[in-house]
Amino acid sequence: MTARPGMHTLTAGRGLLFGGDYNPEQWPEEVWAQDAELMRAAGVNLVTVGVFSWARLEPEPDVRDFTWLDRVLDLMGENGVAVDLATPTASPPPWLGHRWPQTLPVDESGHRLWYGSRNQFCPSSPVYRERALSIVSALASRYASHPALALWHVGNEYGQVCHCDESAAAFRAWLRERYGDLGTLNEAWGTTFWSQRYDDWAEIVPPRLAPYIVNPSQRLDWRRFCSDALLEHYRAERDILREHTPGTPVTTNFMGLFKPVDYWSWAAEEDVVSNDWYPEPGDPLAPARTALTHDLMRGLAGGRPWLLMEQATSAVNWRPHNLPKPPGQFRLESLQALARGADGLCYFQWRASRFGAERFHAAMVPHAGQDTRLHAAVRAHGRELRGLASVAGTPVPARVAMVFDWASWWALEERGRPSDRLNATDQLLSYYLPLWERGVSVDVVPPSADLSGYALVVVPNLFLVGDRDAAALTAYARGGGVLVVGPFSGVVDERSHVRTGRFPAPLREVLGASGEEWLPAPDDVPVRCRWAGGAAFTAHTWTELVAAEGAEAVAEFAGGDLAGSPAVLRHPAGAGPGSGSAWYVATMPEPAALGEIIARALADAGVAGALPGLPPGVEAVRRGDVLFLLNHGAESAVVPITEQAEDLLTGAVADGEVTLAPRDVVALRPHAE
Amino acid sequence: MTARPGMHTLTAGRGLLFGGDYNPEQWPEEVWAQDAELMRAAGVNLVTVGVFSWARLEPEPDVRDFTWLDRVLDLMGENGVAVDLATPTASPPPWLGHRWPQTLPVDESGHRLWYGSRNQFCPSSPVYRERALSIVSALASRYASHPALALWHVGNEYGQVCHCDESAAAFRAWLRERYGDLGTLNEAWGTTFWSQRYDDWAEIVPPRLAPYIVNPSQRLDWRRFCSDALLEHYRAERDILREHTPGTPVTTNFMGLFKPVDYWSWAAEEDVVSNDWYPEPGDPLAPARTALTHDLMRGLAGGRPWLLMEQATSAVNWRPHNLPKPPGQFRLESLQALARGADGLCYFQWRASRFGAERFHAAMVPHAGQDTRLHAAVRAHGRELRGLASVAGTPVPARVAMVFDWASWWALEERGRPSDRLNATDQLLSYYLPLWERGVSVDVVPPSADLSGYALVVVPNLFLVGDRDAAALTAYARGGGVLVVGPFSGVVDERSHVRTGRFPAPLREVLGASGEEWLPAPDDVPVRCRWAGGAAFTAHTWTELVAAEGAEAVAEFAGGDLAGSPAVLRHPAGAGPGSGSAWYVATMPEPAALGEIIARALADAGVAGALPGLPPGVEAVRRGDVLFLLNHGAESAVVPITEQAEDLLTGAVADGEVTLAPRDVVALRPHAE
Amino acid sequence: MTARPGMHTLTAGRGLLFGGDYNPEQWPEEVWAQDAELMRAAGVNLVTVGVFSWARLEPEPDVRDFTWLDRVLDLMGENGVAVDLATPTASPPPWLGHRWPQTLPVDESGHRLWYGSRNQFCPSSPVYRERALSIVSALASRYASHPALALWHVGNEYGQVCHCDESAAAFRAWLRERYGDLGTLNEAWGTTFWSQRYDDWAEIVPPRLAPYIVNPSQRLDWRRFCSDALLEHYRAERDILREHTPGTPVTTNFMGLFKPVDYWSWAAEEDVVSNDWYPEPGDPLAPARTALTHDLMRGLAGGRPWLLMEQATSAVNWRPHNLPKPPGQFRLESLQALARGADGLCYFQWRASRFGAERFHAAMVPHAGQDTRLHAAVRAHGRELRGLASVAGTPVPARVAMVFDWASWWALEERGRPSDRLNATDQLLSYYLPLWERGVSVDVVPPSADLSGYALVVVPNLFLVGDRDAAALTAYARGGGVLVVGPFSGVVDERSHVRTGRFPAPLREVLGASGEEWLPAPDDVPVRCRWAGGAAFTAHTWTELVAAEGAEAVAEFAGGDLAGSPAVLRHPAGAGPGSGSAWYVATMPEPAALGEIIARALADAGVAGALPGLPPGVEAVRRGDVLFLLNHGAESAVVPITEQAEDLLTGAVADGEVTLAPRDVVALRPHAE
Repeated sequence: MTARPGMHTLTAGRGLLFGGDYNPEQWPEEVWAQDAELMRAAGVNLVTVGVFSWARLEPEPDVRDFTWLDRVLDLMGENGVAVDLATPTASPPPWLGHRWPQTLPVDESGHRLWYGSRNQFCPSSPVYRERALSIVSALASRYASHPALALWHVGNEYGQVCHCDESAAAFRAWLRERYGDLGTLNEAWGTTFWSQRYDDWAEIVPPRLAPYIVNPSQRLDWRRFCSDALLEHYRAERDILREHTPGTPVTTNFMGLFKPVDYWSWAAEEDVVSNDWYPEPGDPLAPARTALTHDLMRGLAGGRPWLLMEQATSAVNWRPHNLPKPPGQFRLESLQALARGADGLCYFQWRASRFGAERFHAAMVPHAGQDTRLHAAVRAHGRELRGLASVAGTPVPARVAMVFDWASWWALEERGRPSDRLNATDQLLSYYLPLWERGVSVDVVPPSADLSGYALVVVPNLFLVGDRDAAALTAYARGGGVLVVGPFSGVVDERSHVRTGRFPAPLREVLGASGEEWLPAPDDVPVRCRWAGGAAFTAHTWTELVAAEGAEAVAEFAGGDLAGSPAVLRHPAGAGPGSGSAWYVATMPEPAALGEIIARALADAGVAGALPGLPPGVEAVRRGDVLFLLNHGAESAVVPITEQAEDLLTGAVADGEVTLAPRDVVALRPHAE
Repeated sequence: MTARPGMHTLTAGRGLLFGGDYNPEQWPEEVWAQDAELMRAAGVNLVTVGVFSWARLEPEPDVRDFTWLDRVLDLMGENGVAVDLATPTASPPPWLGHRWPQTLPVDESGHRLWYGSRNQFCPSSPVYRERALSIVSALASRYASHPALALWHVGNEYGQVCHCDESAAAFRAWLRERYGDLGTLNEAWGTTFWSQRYDDWAEIVPPRLAPYIVNPSQRLDWRRFCSDALLEHYRAERDILREHTPGTPVTTNFMGLFKPVDYWSWAAEEDVVSNDWYPEPGDPLAPARTALTHDLMRGLAGGRPWLLMEQATSAVNWRPHNLPKPPGQFRLESLQALARGADGLCYFQWRASRFGAERFHAAMVPHAGQDTRLHAAVRAHGRELRGLASVAGTPVPARVAMVFDWASWWALEERGRPSDRLNATDQLLSYYLPLWERGVSVDVVPPSADLSGYALVVVPNLFLVGDRDAAALTAYARGGGVLVVGPFSGVVDERSHVRTGRFPAPLREVLGASGEEWLPAPDDVPVRCRWAGGAAFTAHTWTELVAAEGAEAVAEFAGGDLAGSPAVLRHPAGAGPGSGSAWYVATMPEPAALGEIIARALADAGVAGALPGLPPGVEAVRRGDVLFLLNHGAESAVVPITEQAEDLLTGAVADGEVTLAPRDVVALRPHAE
Repeated sequence: MTARPGMHTLTAGRGLLFGGDYNPEQWPEEVWAQDAELMRAAGVNLVTVGVFSWARLEPEPDVRDFTWLDRVLDLMGENGVAVDLATPTASPPPWLGHRWPQTLPVDESGHRLWYGSRNQFCPSSPVYRERALSIVSALASRYASHPALALWHVGNEYGQVCHCDESAAAFRAWLRERYGDLGTLNEAWGTTFWSQRYDDWAEIVPPRLAPYIVNPSQRLDWRRFCSDALLEHYRAERDILREHTPGTPVTTNFMGLFKPVDYWSWAAEEDVVSNDWYPEPGDPLAPARTALTHDLMRGLAGGRPWLLMEQATSAVNWRPHNLPKPPGQFRLESLQALARGADGLCYFQWRASRFGAERFHAAMVPHAGQDTRLHAAVRAHGRELRGLASVAGTPVPARVAMVFDWASWWALEERGRPSDRLNATDQLLSYYLPLWERGVSVDVVPPSADLSGYALVVVPNLFLVGDRDAAALTAYARGGGVLVVGPFSGVVDERSHVRTGRFPAPLREVLGASGEEWLPAPDDVPVRCRWAGGAAFTAHTWTELVAAEGAEAVAEFAGGDLAGSPAVLRHPAGAGPGSGSAWYVATMPEPAALGEIIARALADAGVAGALPGLPPGVEAVRRGDVLFLLNHGAESAVVPITEQAEDLLTGAVADGEVTLAPRDVVALRPHAE
């Protein structure tokens, strides 16, 4: 078996990747030459081409015109710009929907979604699939040996869902595969509830508009199917590409914590993990949220470098009120991605469109042209990335893992649960935040991951947990690891059936504690709590009635009907030295209190952050031998450092401390004296 | 004519009923035996079985399996638990919608609603009706003589609405019955407005999605039809049951002030009035709202005992954020229902489901099992109810009636009225609240009720009033009664046509006052008012330009363009002693001011509350010879009592005063010395 | 060529018009006689009849009954009331939709909209068009020579939109007309973006429900088409009417700044411009908003008098909470319209309906009848209008123009722009407000207007601007005019393509300034600015990075990343005296600061208001030789006047100052001593 190509295939000889989406079909060819020149000046070495070119490449069924694309690839090749060539299947031409309306997706209520925008395809449509594979084959055979081709980009931001009858048929086939017989399906879906028993496979449909809450097990399987149906099509495209170009890596662009698609299953099918990421400039938690997302990408890439496929130089166009990024902001964000494992830093898009729905999305070359503040910053950033080439390929070591699972996310966030205020990604971020503030690197991993290399494993929420995963968490803590489990975890099994008995049933033993009531708390009244030592803190939204069964109550509730009942518990998971500890947090503590819990767990685990004494707003992360310090604050910050080092960005030598202007970054490599 | 069976049929020999919905088909049979044992231990004597069992009983059309249900009824019978056996027609199996899509309901916009949830049937579908009656016949004939059968439960929480073409046909038939000829319909619907005249019966459709406001008379008749279409089907099921078991009472479970169905017309068709009631734990008005609902049920039952069919031991699952009930709360609520006329106190459901949309709805046996705080409280409550058996069958005497009408509610709350801030149930509650706070028992009655037995009749809002009902209210006050009428009453007739002339036209004479303008007030500025004596108070949202025509102005507006105009009027309704008084409230007074109006009307009527000097939050209500005191407050309360009495719950003797812990209750029977 | 009839045709011999919509078909004929008498008593001289009478006139297809309408017109004629006779085509009878469902409109999501309300027609439906023209022909031929006929009223409040397949076909025909070939359309719509290229005309559909943002150029053309499709039908009806009655003017009622229909193109097709206008009584900006709307109507009428077709005597029925008008308010509003060029002041409607969706809309004769406060005020107002007859036909001179364009409005307010907080009509009002406060009369004009007669032209927002219009604005300023341009103007061309280069590209030279970044500002933080002199002010929501290129920075940003960058610029547009100045406002200043900018521009232009020293809330406007002063405030106001004058309303002579009670008005004509 030969090793698959990957990010290393791309960075070898190129260093860090820098570039963006390039849509030359929107421009007359005289602009192309100007583009090439500007790209060279900006140090661009990778562009994504053809994402939305189907209608241009195949103006009518089976009539194709690749000549313009030939010229684009030639031009890029001549200018030393590698091409990430997209299959154009994310957005079929109008002729597909017009001639074959069954390829148009149908929403939950039965509305057909039309062309005129993008993404209007049913993932399970045989006609769509056939037509898509046909154009992919033609594209692959034409460009297999083009020297500019460096990466394949399959589709775009997969996430389409369709509820049509063809999707229903595909759903039934998927269910037959999963359950074998109807009896097993009926049991898995709990169809004795509300008289939902299926007597014939043909009766099964997607969860469509219904009078009231729809079966949560059916909905969970539907989400699994929707992710798998897209994945199946992705694989079919990928296989064609691989057949033609076994040495060229294949990717499709993710979108962070994007709910419709289970990226754990997708990442395994890619050669390169790539992501599109657009922090909201007005969101005070954006720096941590972004770091978390980058850590997820690194996790999806199995710890290897990944590619930031799309980011914005300034404002996007799709929010109601699109705040721009102040000067320095996009560079800061780009370097943050680098620090967290990205080896490529690309943008949507190279040149701002004049027409279409994304006219007002920022670009590397704005409407006002190249003689602008923004484009100057782009060029400067491209230049400085050349000085960071040695970072490419280096790892971001982490001794802490956070567990996150799409199926659990899907299962949790259904109608009919105790509270819609306890959500998977909010919990994830709230536990990530204190780690990020302390400069502790985190790998985001699936529940099935090998945890043996980690000193601390944090499970902010794992509403759905399978027996095997529960056993692995138990074994991890018993084997010396430190485990932190957040509230409302271990509640249901893979079918979304509640695990009866005291909760969290499958983790009860390792936690040394169990509960009997989930108790959402009034919105407007803080929940009073008290550390074992007596100091007070507050929590909110959620409490549980839990009893210690071997664990110690690190904190207890201090008011109301739960007064005196444990709020946070710590259980020595095994006997004697070498065995770990297991924490259970039976509420949603205020940030400072959650920080204290995390700090104690870090102490249990013997894990320290990248640097002690980080000022607020300064992010610290080590990649390879480089320590990145990033100032997300609005004020200058002074950061004490522990060893003399050279800033790879400026060449300056730092000793004792570093002063960071707002939005500034240093990349410190220990000084070899 | 023989007397119908009723609640007395159930309580005879059993005392108060205690139990809940029991869905054994969700569990393996080994759990059933455990259930039976736990029921016995908890004093359960009634369970509702089979509500959602259609797909289990008839897995494919005309193929039926009752054997499991035989075993359930046998088991219950062996354990002394009576069965409330449901017809399973609330939720058809998927095969019905799959084979006969025309049975699936269609919403106002034309969307078909699918199976996968529950309640997916068109009430007017001939196929649905035929299939439903067929399974009901089979069920009735099989269990007619089963010794465990005690009560029939038809369907569940009726309220389905469908806008399909079959419903349109049924609507037309209903209209033909009501109006005879198209000319009368055109006149009733005022179709000269906006060119809506119908030329052919076939043109008439339900009120479907339209460009703008739909004809309010058409919508009113549509609501009447929807209630009647369901009632027609209910009656068909009921008649089959009565034919098989003339001595077994029949019920269907109501949902309090539930808008889609006119419970006044339904209650007349039941042997037992039963209700499902789920107070919102975070609602500070929940105790009064609940009391009002219970009084409505007693009114629907004609003053006889009724059955609380469903309540929750703690949180429900269908709100966005489901607050639990603190310890003691469900007992308090259960005893509140008892105090207000319920002879049975049942729960949804016996054992918490592991799967399905209601997994997170509290139950009598929670997921954590029987060794829990919650189940212990259930058992204790079951036990204490045995000591209250003597309450069963006794009446709750009331000298005050409040008038409430579904047709008026429907007619009022349409688009295109002066203000959507004046609503029927809010007005009802606002007038109920001061009566409840004073411990005054109230019967909720329809406008057609015989009012002669009441000393005070309150009409918070009667937007729609027929001539006969208006005359009855007039006669009531003239005959010595005290009448209080709230704003925007007497506005339209049964066709929802405005009664022209000064308002409220049909009550103008009895009120001795009339108005010419309804004047919604700005939201953010309180309306200043003044009592005749000079003291100030505020009102809000609504004012009217009214002139006294014999009435005295008890209060007047004190600011703005209405300054000096009457706000509250009192009219001696007849000449000399023995004639009553009639009050008109031409605004929405703040609670304290409305309390003052009610207090004065009570004085007019010579009505006093159950106890003087009630602390806030303490509810007092007499049932038979027992005085119930219920502390809904968060603090202990001391209640002065007027006679020595024994608390039936504890056996303690109280004298002079009673101290009630938060959420505690006493049931005082005068001490027979 | 003979001159068209117009408002003068109506007012000649009648003076000011006073009346309302009259729907006698809703009442028995005995009420008609009473109506006629009340109309005479109130001075009513114009009623609109038949707007919603189609079903009454044509109860089944081709069966017509005009006899009742004959009697109505005869009665009006006998009582000296002129008739504005409506074609009844706004609301087809149910039989149309029932027999020809393809005439029912379909919304964006594919839902068919039903009858039961009004306006349920597809503007492009051949069957609808044929049936409508047929009834119009019959009506026109029957009443062509009726002496009461004074005005034709085509349809009602046009604005219907339909997305059905017949509309799609009509859209394609319209596009063929506009673009000729598909290549030009593909270029205009920028279909290389997102693979939207059309290969066949048949593929083109209206913008229907789609997965994401729809092509903005397609949507812009769709809006143009929708307006034109209605206009085409309007013209067809009008042509029939003109053929029968060449001397009778034709109108259709507008609705102010109503987005779906481009009134600039419509007004050219009318003989009389008429408007329906319903200020929100709770809106503090209503007086200025109303004045702006009236000025727009005068602009649509080319400076000639116009007709206020519908207003309300008090509350409407279609808002959620319908505040009434205090006494004096409807008179104040009526006189405001008169002062701003209306020669007719009519109401919806004469007599309040008893039934239908508008039962609770105020009328000239309320439900309570004629002996009411409201009807007395109507009569008094009718009487006083007779004393103002000399105002009829006189002009409202203005030296200031504001440019407003429907296409630009449509293009601006699409998804996917920098901020949905910058909107066309809000910008228009914000620039209008300081002019209104200063008593400066304004003509609202289209971008294509002849600007040569104005001293000041204000362009609050012109997102879309064609080359010719941009050149005209440039020439205007170069020719000595003063031009004020608001932010985010000059951004796109007629196809909604961004004009590349520094913005506003086509106005860059005349403004002597250009920008490179649109920078929406955080919502919650005021934008700090500073006048050149040093004084501070704030702006909000929006900023731009702009550089002066000849212009002076009248104000600059004073904080954040833009500190020191120009916020407001003034450019002497030509060399030497006689050349004008051009202002650019690169933000959204607080009202006082915008007032200062407008004040300086007025000074540049040498324009003064109607009166100096106006108290807040008092509106001053000159019409002919009459100075109207209207007190919109809640307190009395003293207004200094500059010459002795007689109040036409009271006959009183004013000298030195006038005292206005709240909601009072004076109409001052200089005293001829």
